[in-house]
Amino acid sequence: MRKEIPYKIYLAEDELPRQWYNVRADMKNKPAPLLNPDTRLPITEDELSAVFCRELARQELDDVNPYIDIPEPLIDFYRMYRPAPLVRAYCLEQKLDTPAHIYYKFEGNNTSGSHKLNSAIAQAYYAKQQGLAGVTTETGAGQWGTALSMACSYFDLDCRVYMVKVSHDQKPHRREVMRTYGASVTPSPSDTTEVGRKILAAHPGTGGSLGCAISEAVEAAVTSGGKYRYVLGSVLSQVLLHQSIIGLETKAALDKYGVKPDIIIGCAGGGSNLGGLISPFMGEMLRGEAEYRFIAVEPASCPTLTRGVYAYDYCDTGMICPLAKMYTLGSSFMPAPMHAGGLRYHGMTPVLSQLCADGLMEATSVTQTSVFDAAVTFARVEGILPAPESSHAIRAAIDEALKCKETGEQKTILFGLTGTGYFDMAAYGRHNDGSLTDYIPTDEEIAASLAQLPVVE
Amino acid sequence: MRKEIPYKIYLAEDELPRQWYNVRADMKNKPAPLLNPDTRLPITEDELSAVFCRELARQELDDVNPYIDIPEPLIDFYRMYRPAPLVRAYCLEQKLDTPAHIYYKFEGNNTSGSHKLNSAIAQAYYAKQQGLAGVTTETGAGQWGTALSMACSYFDLDCRVYMVKVSHDQKPHRREVMRTYGASVTPSPSDTTEVGRKILAAHPGTGGSLGCAISEAVEAAVTSGGKYRYVLGSVLSQVLLHQSIIGLETKAALDKYGVKPDIIIGCAGGGSNLGGLISPFMGEMLRGEAEYRFIAVEPASCPTLTRGVYAYDYCDTGMICPLAKMYTLGSSFMPAPMHAGGLRYHGMTPVLSQLCADGLMEATSVTQTSVFDAAVTFARVEGILPAPESSHAIRAAIDEALKCKETGEQKTILFGLTGTGYFDMAAYGRHNDGSLTDYIPTDEEIAASLAQLPVVE
Repeated sequence: MRKEIPYKIYLAEDELPRQWYNVRADMKNKPAPLLNPDTRLPITEDELSAVFCRELARQELDDVNPYIDIPEPLIDFYRMYRPAPLVRAYCLEQKLDTPAHIYYKFEGNNTSGSHKLNSAIAQAYYAKQQGLAGVTTETGAGQWGTALSMACSYFDLDCRVYMVKVSHDQKPHRREVMRTYGASVTPSPSDTTEVGRKILAAHPGTGGSLGCAISEAVEAAVTSGGKYRYVLGSVLSQVLLHQSIIGLETKAALDKYGVKPDIIIGCAGGGSNLGGLISPFMGEMLRGEAEYRFIAVEPASCPTLTRGVYAYDYCDTGMICPLAKMYTLGSSFMPAPMHAGGLRYHGMTPVLSQLCADGLMEATSVTQTSVFDAAVTFARVEGILPAPESSHAIRAAIDEALKCKETGEQKTILFGLTGTGYFDMAAYGRHNDGSLTDYIPTDEEIAASLAQLPVVE
Repeated sequence: MRKEIPYKIYLAEDELPRQWYNVRADMKNKPAPLLNPDTRLPITEDELSAVFCRELARQELDDVNPYIDIPEPLIDFYRMYRPAPLVRAYCLEQKLDTPAHIYYKFEGNNTSGSHKLNSAIAQAYYAKQQGLAGVTTETGAGQWGTALSMACSYFDLDCRVYMVKVSHDQKPHRREVMRTYGASVTPSPSDTTEVGRKILAAHPGTGGSLGCAISEAVEAAVTSGGKYRYVLGSVLSQVLLHQSIIGLETKAALDKYGVKPDIIIGCAGGGSNLGGLISPFMGEMLRGEAEYRFIAVEPASCPTLTRGVYAYDYCDTGMICPLAKMYTLGSSFMPAPMHAGGLRYHGMTPVLSQLCADGLMEATSVTQTSVFDAAVTFARVEGILPAPESSHAIRAAIDEALKCKETGEQKTILFGLTGTGYFDMAAYGRHNDGSLTDYIPTDEEIAASLAQLPVVE
């Protein structure tokens, strides 16, 4: 018996999930193991623990246990901004004049402005538990750095962020949020690391890159005498585990009203949000309990799942991190500048890559201009200004809802709204001025970077 | 019997208030009537209706009816972001090591980022009902303009915002939010109005002022052939009426858990947020049903209640709006530049002015640097980056909680957290750099502007 459904479905605090769900446990075909970049052998927990916190290294390699307890201090932190609202998009449905029912899970409801906080706080917690002085990381667009600085502030942990220099200079407001939360923010490349100094000597005046910032952050951690570890906001299986809270809450909220989605949609850069949203639903499908259609939405300018290959590759352009088997455009692929910085990643988390390879998930790509059109439509009727990244999912959800309008089908569409666009107003300004453009890489460009994939026996 | 209190107390959607509360109905000493600036006689509904929508003019003059129905389409809109959370500030209490219990009502939980949306949507609705083509307004810091552009977008109403030129140029991101919601944003002074052209001729290169922007917005409305009306985001009694939803929700949420605040605190610029928050509590006190301590917090650089006089004055520096009896520093008072633009107003809404004059409310003033200290403390433990305006209330709440620590008293402190600081990161940056300064006007400066008060028989 379906009750009348409110605009926002809030779970009560005592309905907050107490365990994360590890979808790998239910996968018949497990994601391929991470490889040590030197030995090309599956990386061990001890090897990983030199870079990551011990407990996080353990979680990274655990593809057996389906449920992992969320520590009590994390539950307390989650209570400050979770459960996050699940919204029935009545106004969008009306605007589109579609018979489809549209729901979105809104993760921008905290000061960091995105879902990244869900994993940042977990990683900060385990670092604190291990008695570390702090953590190092890189940030590009700044969502991850912001979330991590909030998390470290809460646990009184030092936070050193290497921010791609061009973002550091172009996004001073993002930088100030991190500093307000007590993080030190260093424009990368910098003269604080050996790798930074080398790059500066070779390329004076460079604006930096995510790959270089990763290399500096890793170096800062491994040369800290064991006082710091490196943390990462996406791609890793541990991150998907933490982000499963998105899907668990969503499923609990829908179950309350007897709603079962037909289509589940998320934007996909490294895959952390999408992986978290779909996990419990995918688990049901893997166990043969339900059927869903899952759609990963990526930018046409960085089409990892739709035009990449499934192969071992480096996770970073600096080639110092473990090798992962994943859909990739090649670690040397340089996506065109675009305004969804969080989706400018050459690879895709191994979990989602395996699910795609097994035909359990679809992927589609959309252009930047069509994404901003969808973002503005959504903002005006739903009253939330979405991040450009999140707006990829909005675009696909609108397209599916419009298909329903044509066919008359009353499908239930669920998508992840990962964050807000407050720090992306320069991009909106270009859209408002009509000066946004699209870029789609040629087959030759993609082939050139794929030709440099590492050879793994 | 007090239940265990969650971090966030959410009301269910069916607990949304269906009526606004008009505190004037319970005031023994009513606010003095607005005066026609030409005749100096109490302004009539017809006179007001030339500038404001008819229904809003009616609400402005109604000091008799305690409850006014919220129209159903507004309830639907409120459902998109309301009920707003009431938060028990457990983390702040712990940080301060105080026996006090602290609660805050968070109104930044919508894309406009502040409580202004509560009245913007009401004013847009009545304009739409009246068959108008659109509305005109001014904005300084931009919160009101943002809220109004969202509201007009929802009702498909044209929105013309005159934005103080210096803000227009310094806050391009605020401007782009408004444009994204379809508003036209004109830097003021402009050549689109007679008053604007006069000012430009007299002061070429001026950065503009709120007074000038008001004059342009009013002129644009009254010369539109009846197709537009002017709307205002604070000071007016109609705005306090709409904002009473803040207090009504807060009271309902506290009542659920049997909590009665001892002290209720809000920042005060024009008074819209504070008036809305305290209204139902003040109503109880006026009816002799309860006792509360109310504290208005204003910036030391613009100390209307603490250093102004209670007298008739112009609401705008252009002296074209009705005269209001209120606490004022004089309409020619020019507050020093500071980073809580929403509190840079020379007067105070007549309702709160009368309550202060009657000894029913206290006022205090705080310096900008102490406010940002409080903001950062709050942000780091409560996970919300507050607007500089809201942080005035945080400062006072922390001070009261620290007094409790000294005395050992377990008081219950409630404050209004009106909005988020995403568009104020330049100010936070100055705080992070240690380059923020304070400014306190001299007695002579205040006396000089008070000497120019209009003479009302």
